[in-house]
Amino acid sequence: MSQLRKDPIIGRWVIIAEERARRPTDFTPLPETPSKGVCPFCVGNEHMTPKEVYSYRNPGSPPDGPGWKVRVVSNKYPALRIEGELEKRGDGVYDRMNGIGAHEVIIESPKHVISITELPDKDVADIIKITKERMNDLKGDKRFLYGMLFKNVGAAAGASLEHTHSQLIVLPSVPIRVSQEMNGSKEFFNYRGRCIFCDIIRQEKEQKIRIVYETDKYVTLTPYASRFPFEVWILPKLHQSHYEDVADSDLDELANCLITTLKKLENTLERPPYNFMVHTSPFNTNNIDYYHWHIEITPRLTRIAGFEWGTGFYINPVPPENAANFLREA
Amino acid sequence: MSQLRKDPIIGRWVIIAEERARRPTDFTPLPETPSKGVCPFCVGNEHMTPKEVYSYRNPGSPPDGPGWKVRVVSNKYPALRIEGELEKRGDGVYDRMNGIGAHEVIIESPKHVISITELPDKDVADIIKITKERMNDLKGDKRFLYGMLFKNVGAAAGASLEHTHSQLIVLPSVPIRVSQEMNGSKEFFNYRGRCIFCDIIRQEKEQKIRIVYETDKYVTLTPYASRFPFEVWILPKLHQSHYEDVADSDLDELANCLITTLKKLENTLERPPYNFMVHTSPFNTNNIDYYHWHIEITPRLTRIAGFEWGTGFYINPVPPENAANFLREA
Repeated sequence: MSQLRKDPIIGRWVIIAEERARRPTDFTPLPETPSKGVCPFCVGNEHMTPKEVYSYRNPGSPPDGPGWKVRVVSNKYPALRIEGELEKRGDGVYDRMNGIGAHEVIIESPKHVISITELPDKDVADIIKITKERMNDLKGDKRFLYGMLFKNVGAAAGASLEHTHSQLIVLPSVPIRVSQEMNGSKEFFNYRGRCIFCDIIRQEKEQKIRIVYETDKYVTLTPYASRFPFEVWILPKLHQSHYEDVADSDLDELANCLITTLKKLENTLERPPYNFMVHTSPFNTNNIDYYHWHIEITPRLTRIAGFEWGTGFYINPVPPENAANFLREA
Repeated sequence: MSQLRKDPIIGRWVIIAEERARRPTDFTPLPETPSKGVCPFCVGNEHMTPKEVYSYRNPGSPPDGPGWKVRVVSNKYPALRIEGELEKRGDGVYDRMNGIGAHEVIIESPKHVISITELPDKDVADIIKITKERMNDLKGDKRFLYGMLFKNVGAAAGASLEHTHSQLIVLPSVPIRVSQEMNGSKEFFNYRGRCIFCDIIRQEKEQKIRIVYETDKYVTLTPYASRFPFEVWILPKLHQSHYEDVADSDLDELANCLITTLKKLENTLERPPYNFMVHTSPFNTNNIDYYHWHIEITPRLTRIAGFEWGTGFYINPVPPENAANFLREA
């Protein structure tokens, strides 16, 4: 079983995947393109994945066979396992827990599609729906504190398979990046009495220089302090703290905003590799007034080097105002 | 001029390099190997770099020509510029400053050497000496708060030139990663009255499972919560808060510890790409009791993907105890 270990200086947790323990010679050069073999995510190859956890499928079709539209399975090489009690212990200055959690894969189409922009809007709304259902289901488990929904597209963004899919990793501790966001936005709220994200949206709507796209309820913008070229965020315009609380009646509109944003990135940057991350509130909170869920999409166009790793500073050669211009016109 | 902008939620600064503003088509696929053209860092090509800031050179040899052993120049494409007053201003919820700072390149050998492990120990001691002299010099400038000394080796680690060199970026604000370390170690000190790094060294010397190498005054270990496979840290055994305070009489020993560590990594992993970062205290502090400078060396063997970006969690497939075993025997 893997272990969660805590850095004693800054409190960052890492997952030490003991059972996959690799030898130095296992680190061949990193692949430049995702695997091109038989695709385990295509319809007909359901036996190549772990058993289905959940799916949208034709009435009466049995699990782990054809007939599905969106299919959720456990990750074949899970970072964390769902079985067992959470055991926390210390070792001198160090703290650790056993690797309890969940690691699911959402297979977004039975067809070998590379990007969700190739799917009809309605199908994308279904994908979003299934992810919030999985989040709500796992939230009921008291061992778990946070669910990170993400997607890696392209080898440079860490994808090992090209068939469109996302992943949900559910964790027994609140990640450091989330704590930082919660603390920062709480501090702002305590001081100003407003949600910082709501303030950002208000200012961006006035300035109009970093907005890429909007619908009635959602907005895509390039953040003022973008770390990466063409980084974009999608936010609900009305305050909402939890992604899994998106109303079913808003799914079509969110799907439209997401697809339009991704198409703009794909057209502007010729289908770049990218990471997609949902930033939402911890499971043990409800309707909080200071935090605002959002999606961060970061194309992988530059390399991260020693300066960035050492400082947490980023050097971005594309001002977000320029990026927004290109994307608006795409 | 570039701008420093602050993320209003977590307080992270980024550098927006406006004058280099790139277009979408400028992001060709990332190079797999550093540039193979004429090397601007080789002896005889001094005219290809900006003017020399400092050097160790033969007595009487004029700057910007041959005769040097270690040469410091401004970066040709600096992230920050040294000229001008620091201007801070707000823009609604946002904060920014102009891009004042320093960005120097330390060219570590006149010969086209790829790794400092190819140099005699004495030369490496000179390289360390010149970096602490640069740090001490720039520290005198009241506009500056932090100096990040780092090295990128190999294209996957962000190097664009293979000739051995390091970089020093001096910043007008304390980076978020540094604040986190300072806050975390201060909290520990306030509670326990001891430096957390000193405690770690004490425990590691007792447990002996993560120590890779030691000399009288320095120790190399794989950190308990290593983010990356074969991540190693080098620390002074006696408490010291500032890298630039290393005594000249300790330079040979530090050079030996560094070279031995790098040779072990190079032998175990067949010359991996890596980042090297000096973590030290901010310029406006002196001899602090709660923080302990150290070097972090992180081989780049795995890709960082959405989960890591979204959470700050890392998944490490090599337990640090296994990594230390391989490295000890190398």
